[in-house]
Amino acid sequence: MAKKNLFYAQSGGVTAVINATAAAVIETARRYKSRIGKVYAGRDGIIGALTEDLIDTSKESAATVKALKHTPSGAFGSCRYKLRDIDKDASQYERLIEVFRAHDIGYFLYNGGNDSADTSLKISRIAEKMGYPLICVGVPKTVDNDLAVTDTCPGFGSVAKYVAVSIREAGFDVASMARTSTRVFVLEVMGRHAGWITAACGLAAEREGDAPHVLLFPEVRFDQDKFIAKVDACVQHYGYCTIAVSEGLRTADGKFVSETGLRDAFGHAQLGGVAPVVAQLVQQKLNLKYHWAVADYLQRAARHIASKTDLDQSYAVGKAAVEFAVKGYNGTMPVIVRKSNRPYRWIIGKADLNDIANHEKFMPEDFIREDGFHITDKCRAYLSPLIAGEAYPPYRNGLPQYIRLKNRPVPKKLGTEFKL
Amino acid sequence: MAKKNLFYAQSGGVTAVINATAAAVIETARRYKSRIGKVYAGRDGIIGALTEDLIDTSKESAATVKALKHTPSGAFGSCRYKLRDIDKDASQYERLIEVFRAHDIGYFLYNGGNDSADTSLKISRIAEKMGYPLICVGVPKTVDNDLAVTDTCPGFGSVAKYVAVSIREAGFDVASMARTSTRVFVLEVMGRHAGWITAACGLAAEREGDAPHVLLFPEVRFDQDKFIAKVDACVQHYGYCTIAVSEGLRTADGKFVSETGLRDAFGHAQLGGVAPVVAQLVQQKLNLKYHWAVADYLQRAARHIASKTDLDQSYAVGKAAVEFAVKGYNGTMPVIVRKSNRPYRWIIGKADLNDIANHEKFMPEDFIREDGFHITDKCRAYLSPLIAGEAYPPYRNGLPQYIRLKNRPVPKKLGTEFKL
Repeated sequence: MAKKNLFYAQSGGVTAVINATAAAVIETARRYKSRIGKVYAGRDGIIGALTEDLIDTSKESAATVKALKHTPSGAFGSCRYKLRDIDKDASQYERLIEVFRAHDIGYFLYNGGNDSADTSLKISRIAEKMGYPLICVGVPKTVDNDLAVTDTCPGFGSVAKYVAVSIREAGFDVASMARTSTRVFVLEVMGRHAGWITAACGLAAEREGDAPHVLLFPEVRFDQDKFIAKVDACVQHYGYCTIAVSEGLRTADGKFVSETGLRDAFGHAQLGGVAPVVAQLVQQKLNLKYHWAVADYLQRAARHIASKTDLDQSYAVGKAAVEFAVKGYNGTMPVIVRKSNRPYRWIIGKADLNDIANHEKFMPEDFIREDGFHITDKCRAYLSPLIAGEAYPPYRNGLPQYIRLKNRPVPKKLGTEFKL
Repeated sequence: MAKKNLFYAQSGGVTAVINATAAAVIETARRYKSRIGKVYAGRDGIIGALTEDLIDTSKESAATVKALKHTPSGAFGSCRYKLRDIDKDASQYERLIEVFRAHDIGYFLYNGGNDSADTSLKISRIAEKMGYPLICVGVPKTVDNDLAVTDTCPGFGSVAKYVAVSIREAGFDVASMARTSTRVFVLEVMGRHAGWITAACGLAAEREGDAPHVLLFPEVRFDQDKFIAKVDACVQHYGYCTIAVSEGLRTADGKFVSETGLRDAFGHAQLGGVAPVVAQLVQQKLNLKYHWAVADYLQRAARHIASKTDLDQSYAVGKAAVEFAVKGYNGTMPVIVRKSNRPYRWIIGKADLNDIANHEKFMPEDFIREDGFHITDKCRAYLSPLIAGEAYPPYRNGLPQYIRLKNRPVPKKLGTEFKL
C-alpha cells in the first residue's frame, strides 16, 4: 500500500491511561514515515470523522506527545455516540468513507470497548463494499474489563489500583475511629454489569481482618438479611466493617438497588448512588454510625495513582495497532495475552474483531467466594499483577502537570455538512 | 525534673499524616533517654488514659516507628469523646492524674484540634491544683485547618493536595466527554464550618478555563439562582462545568443544603450528601447530564498522595512537642510560623494553649472571590505551598505498605475500673 494517512479516535468513557495509547499510536506512526503520512485524530471521537472535524497531530511536538503518557482522559475528546444500524441506514458509514477518501486515510484505528470493535468491523466491511482500501484495527480500552479475548483491558488496571488503594486507606481510617465513631464505611465503585472493579477492591484485603470486609457484586443478587448478618458479624469481630459496592448492585427481582431507596423532597425519582442506600440500611438495621463515599469519575481519571502494568499495556496496544495496520491486518485488534502469573508475563496477541465485537466478558463464577461477599484466591491471582507498579506523573506546585494539546484542525476538503 | 514517662494520644478525626507526628514523638523521645523513660500511647485516644489502657511504644522497633511516617490514620486509635465540664464534674480529670501518677507520667502530649487544646489546658490546671508535676503540650492536627495562631494545621495540606489533584483529574475527564455525555460534575469535600478544603480545590484552576469552575463554600450562603446562572454561563463558555461543594453548604436560612433534598422511600430524613442535591438541581434547571462524587474519608486517608510539606510539618510539630516538654514549656503548643511565600519558608513557633483552645479560624473574607464562587490570588498564595511536594509510601504488589503496630498494653497498676 502507498503512503496513507492514519485516522485515530477515542470512544466511550475515558480512562487514566487511554492517552498513553494515543501517544503510542502517534509515536509509532512517526517511525513509519514511508508508509504512514499524518495521524489525524477525530475531535470528540467518531463524531470528528462524521463532521470532518479532524485534528492534525503532526502539529504537536514530540515532547507534547510524550506528555500524553502521563495525562488522563481523552486528549482529542471522546464521545458516547452510537452509529445507526448499518442495515437500515448506511449513510453514516458511507459518510465516514467519504471523509477518509477526502483526507487520503488508509488506516482506521478505533480505541474503545465492545461497541467500538463492532463499529470498526462494520466500517471495514463497508469500505470493502465501496471499494475503498482501508485497514481497520480496533484498539482495546475500557475500565470495565469486559472485552472478550484479551486477558485484560487497558484502563482497568489503573481503576483497580485506585479503588484497592482507596479502600485500604479508608479502612485504616475507620479502624482507628471505630471505638467511638464510624463503624461502617461504604465505598461505591463503577461497573454497571460486571464486578471487576468491585473485585479489585478485594485486593486490599491481604491479611485476615483487612479492609474491605464485604464486597457487593452486580453478579450476586442483593440479599438484605444475609448482608446485614455479615456486617454485624464483622463489626462484632473486628470492631468495624468496610464495604465496597458496585453501582450495578441489584435486588432479587433485578432492580438496581440505587433506584430502590432515594427520592427527592417531592418524591421524584432517585438521585443515583447505591452507597448511601446500603449505608442507610445498615444504620436502620444495626444502628451503627456510617460514612459513605462515591468515587465516580475520580476512579477512572486518577492518573496520579495509575498502574504501571496498565500503563505499559496501554502503550503496547497502541504501538501494536499501528504495526498491525502497517502489516495490513484488517479487522483485527491487538490484545493482552497472559503467559504466566508469577512472575507475571504478558505479550501482545492478535485477535479477530469478530471474536470481540458484541461479546461481553463477565467475572467467572469461581472468582467470587462461595458466600458471595468476597473474591477467591484464583481471582486475586488474576487481578494482582494488573495493579503492580507505580507510574507517577510529574508535578509542579504540588499538582500533576497534565498536558493539553493544541488540537489544530485539518482544513476541510468536503463542502458538505453532515447532520449527526 | 527526674526521668519521667511520656503520654501521647491522638484525638478526633485522623489524617493521612498524624502518624508522622506520632513517629516524631517516639523517635525524639528516644533521643532524650536521660529525661524521658517510655512513651505510652493512649489506646483510642484519651479513652486509653481514662481506662488505664496504655500502649507501650517501646515494644515497637525503630523500623516500625519509621514506617508510621508513611501510614495514614491513627496508629493507636483515636476517639471522638468529650470530657465532661470540669467545673461540674472533675472526676474524669482526677482519674487522668491518678493514671498518670500510677505510671510515672510527667509529660502529656495531646495531638488534636481545638477541643484537644482545651483538654490539655484543663489537665494542666488540674495537675497543678492536685500538686502533680505534669508538663502538658498540645500538638496540632486537623484537616479542617481551623486552629488559631498556627499558620496551617498538620493534616490539612494532604487533604488539600488530594482534593486539588482529584478535581483536576475529574475535570480532564469531563472535558473530554462533554460533547455527548456528562456536562456537569460535582465533587463534595469535607469542611462543615470552614471552607479551607473547598478552597484547596480551587488550586487546580491555574489557567483560564481550568477545573474547578465553581466553588461552593460554607461561608457563602447558597443562592440557587446565582449558582444556576453561573453553571449555565460556564457550560456555554467551556462546554462543561466542574463544581466543588463543601459538605457544610447552607441555604439563606442557615439550613444545610444536604438536608434539604433527600428523603428515603418512606419520606424519612436525609441520607447525607450535598453533591447529589446540587447535581440534581442542575439537572432540573438546565437539563444537563451530571455526575457526582463524594470523597468522604478517602480525602483524609489518602496517604498515597500526601503533601510533602504537610508531612514535614506533621513530623516537625511532633519533634518540637517533645522538645517543648523536655524544656518544661507547660501549656504550650508548637505551631507553624510562615516566614515567606516565595520561596516558602516556615519555622516552628511556640504558642500558648490559651490562645488556641476554643478559638476557630475561618477563611478570611479576602480569600473568597467577590462573586463568592472561587478563591482569590491571596488565597492561592497562602494555600499553594501547603500542597507542594510528593511523599510516596512504599508499595508491594501494587499496594501501599502501611504498618500495623503491635500495640502491646502496659500492665495495669490501678485496681480500679473507670466507667466512661
